[in-house]
Amino acid sequence: MNLERLRHAVFEANMELHHRGLVLDTFGNVSGINREEGMILIKPSGVTYENLSPASMVAVSLETGTVVDSDLRPSSDTPTHLELYDHFKCGGIVHMHSEYATALAQNRLPIRCMGTTHADYFRGDIPVSRSMTKEEVEKDYERNTGRVIVETFQNMDPMEIPGLLVANHGPFAWGRDPHEAVHHAVILEFLAKLENTMLSTRSNGRRPEQWLIDKHYFRKHGKGAYYGQRSKSNKT
Amino acid sequence: MNLERLRHAVFEANMELHHRGLVLDTFGNVSGINREEGMILIKPSGVTYENLSPASMVAVSLETGTVVDSDLRPSSDTPTHLELYDHFKCGGIVHMHSEYATALAQNRLPIRCMGTTHADYFRGDIPVSRSMTKEEVEKDYERNTGRVIVETFQNMDPMEIPGLLVANHGPFAWGRDPHEAVHHAVILEFLAKLENTMLSTRSNGRRPEQWLIDKHYFRKHGKGAYYGQRSKSNKT
Amino acid sequence: MNLERLRHAVFEANMELHHRGLVLDTFGNVSGINREEGMILIKPSGVTYENLSPASMVAVSLETGTVVDSDLRPSSDTPTHLELYDHFKCGGIVHMHSEYATALAQNRLPIRCMGTTHADYFRGDIPVSRSMTKEEVEKDYERNTGRVIVETFQNMDPMEIPGLLVANHGPFAWGRDPHEAVHHAVILEFLAKLENTMLSTRSNGRRPEQWLIDKHYFRKHGKGAYYGQRSKSNKT
Amino acid sequence: MNLERLRHAVFEANMELHHRGLVLDTFGNVSGINREEGMILIKPSGVTYENLSPASMVAVSLETGTVVDSDLRPSSDTPTHLELYDHFKCGGIVHMHSEYATALAQNRLPIRCMGTTHADYFRGDIPVSRSMTKEEVEKDYERNTGRVIVETFQNMDPMEIPGLLVANHGPFAWGRDPHEAVHHAVILEFLAKLENTMLSTRSNGRRPEQWLIDKHYFRKHGKGAYYGQRSKSNKT
Repeated sequence: MNLERLRHAVFEANMELHHRGLVLDTFGNVSGINREEGMILIKPSGVTYENLSPASMVAVSLETGTVVDSDLRPSSDTPTHLELYDHFKCGGIVHMHSEYATALAQNRLPIRCMGTTHADYFRGDIPVSRSMTKEEVEKDYERNTGRVIVETFQNMDPMEIPGLLVANHGPFAWGRDPHEAVHHAVILEFLAKLENTMLSTRSNGRRPEQWLIDKHYFRKHGKGAYYGQRSKSNKT
Repeated sequence: MNLERLRHAVFEANMELHHRGLVLDTFGNVSGINREEGMILIKPSGVTYENLSPASMVAVSLETGTVVDSDLRPSSDTPTHLELYDHFKCGGIVHMHSEYATALAQNRLPIRCMGTTHADYFRGDIPVSRSMTKEEVEKDYERNTGRVIVETFQNMDPMEIPGLLVANHGPFAWGRDPHEAVHHAVILEFLAKLENTMLSTRSNGRRPEQWLIDKHYFRKHGKGAYYGQRSKSNKT
Repeated sequence: MNLERLRHAVFEANMELHHRGLVLDTFGNVSGINREEGMILIKPSGVTYENLSPASMVAVSLETGTVVDSDLRPSSDTPTHLELYDHFKCGGIVHMHSEYATALAQNRLPIRCMGTTHADYFRGDIPVSRSMTKEEVEKDYERNTGRVIVETFQNMDPMEIPGLLVANHGPFAWGRDPHEAVHHAVILEFLAKLENTMLSTRSNGRRPEQWLIDKHYFRKHGKGAYYGQRSKSNKT
Repeated sequence: MNLERLRHAVFEANMELHHRGLVLDTFGNVSGINREEGMILIKPSGVTYENLSPASMVAVSLETGTVVDSDLRPSSDTPTHLELYDHFKCGGIVHMHSEYATALAQNRLPIRCMGTTHADYFRGDIPVSRSMTKEEVEKDYERNTGRVIVETFQNMDPMEIPGLLVANHGPFAWGRDPHEAVHHAVILEFLAKLENTMLSTRSNGRRPEQWLIDKHYFRKHGKGAYYGQRSKSNKT
């Protein structure tokens, strides 16, 4: 995606997050990346959704972390996004404070993979990060948030589990582009709602067997996928 | 219903399921059957609701399970629908991943018949299927899902309990035609919400007596029915 | 209110109940009474809300319980309404299967008076009826439902506690006219939602003292009322 | 803000509270103050939101507590607002009976500071007041409600924790002006919903460390704030 198309895609993804009711106030942001140009585009900090436009998306250099050609400040979470782009092969990232995922993040509870709705998108539990140290919080906080996320995925494939909960904070989700990142964020919040409902009625429900999880995940992903209209793998 | 009318009825039933907020993403499908022609019509796989039309409903032969006269793939759950039409005398079937019924299915908890709202439509508990074996999942998964559903009803009348929860998956519901199938799906989700609410405040509520359940069920079904405007049995 | 005005009032009250989202399907009905004429007006049985009009409200004689001048059947719950008008000095009655009140009714849990929002309308707990015997259910079921409600209020003033939950069934509410009956039903459902939320987080919350309940109840009712714009008692 | 602008601001803040779905019936009110003129403006008592206008906001003298130049009665909670303006340096106050905050108030449970969403606006737990004595309730009830709120904040800065829950009653929130007071009320209700959800799944979740709370609070408040577009502290 060239920068101009990416700018529109990032704008639209931010607006969709808002329209889906996933953001409280100005608490939420979506970014996208053009890796050839070494540039990300991200929501400006603290600007209300009514006042957003494609032109107000802020370009930031992946290498230097500095703003390119804008008078607006980028989201204060920008260093977290940059850290994730450095380590994950994703094209879009979402951060939000959605109701049910945030409740779990604040309770430091993962979203267990309890069924096929989950397995269609995430091949296993959606994890919670460890909590951050005083040093990590007081200096370079937003970059360190990214580092703690990357650490959480050291033994997992972030493209098979495209999201997590940051302890006592809230969810991040990502995808191959900004649109897919928002789609994963929407699913993650739905799964978080199911998880809260399940935990409030039975805390020890039996987990599905791994073969059921894999059956559903690979019905939609990879070479053997047969869900949808195209013959190739089509995520979403 | 001739095939042309059935095509419209199946389209409208799919759209109603969507408008009622019972489907996440493209996860949900409704089918209908014309038993004389030996043909079902069902939603195409992975097509968004904005892009559906009567013409995009896919005709599938009940006998051979193959698509008739369409370039679109039918829902990946088609073999489950076919299996149910083989064993149940229903005219329409719904599958969905609705919030509260899915939470119970993932927790492997039935929807207990706890009151008259339930008994007006379902003459007893809405059951959960057993979980499927590795063999059943890995080969012929969707057909086996149907087989496990049929097995669940071996000692129950599927027209008196027109729905169930598949373990760690989600609900199916059916009715005399696609419209009634959706109606039962709407009621099932409402009852699932009540069940989750009840379980979160009191897990051992006292069940209603069978005479109260039967009173309500037969107020609306069968020869002695006296609910509504017509003198004969009118379900719905 | 003369019969023509009452007919419109009962129609509008039924529609408001529907618009407030308190009725599932056709499960809910409102009636009103003209005591001088000995006549009630009530929703017809099983008719959808889109097809209701003032003209379709059914007039029923308080004394004989028979329909006056209509081809439509009245709500199957009509004998319950008649029994309540015989014993309570109310002008309108609502029955519904609203989500949170029905969940409590099915769990046989009262709505405890836990705060001022409750005390502003109901001077104490909203009770649950006893369950009905086999004989009461099998013969004259709807009239007996009314009798069991009246029995529940033998030591309470139904105009101070204008509603209850029928065990394993759902709520009834009433008021000085059909509009107030719906208003009390709306408040009752809100209080039922609070009660379910409270019970899911803490089952032994400390109750407010009686002086706080009475302070709020009498701020809005009776001679000393000082809430609102008029100098006299104005309920609502 | 001069009195004319304040009148419009108070009207709009009342309407926003209504549009956000935070008020049941006429149960909720917003006021604003002009300290130079010694005057507050507040919603009239028991008037429905459809009938409100800037002209119907009632002016009340801060010193004498009496109505200035209006035929309408002010909100019955006016003495509570006056007491708070006497002790807190706020410019606007909200009272409401919103669903989740009221459920916690009735359960006498505080809103624990469990994460960054909370810490962005409230620098610590949102407390519950003690319950009121018989004497406090029976005489000068509304003024005493204010006194109990002020007492709750004797060791806290009300501008760092701009809200609380009154036991068995409901929430109050405040801010630098009526608009910010409503904004804080909206956030408080969101946090109350999270708290209820958290408590229904895990009652002993680990709290965030104070450094994380302070990091977030001061990212948005005070001299070092760097959230948003302006270089100075900008709350909201």
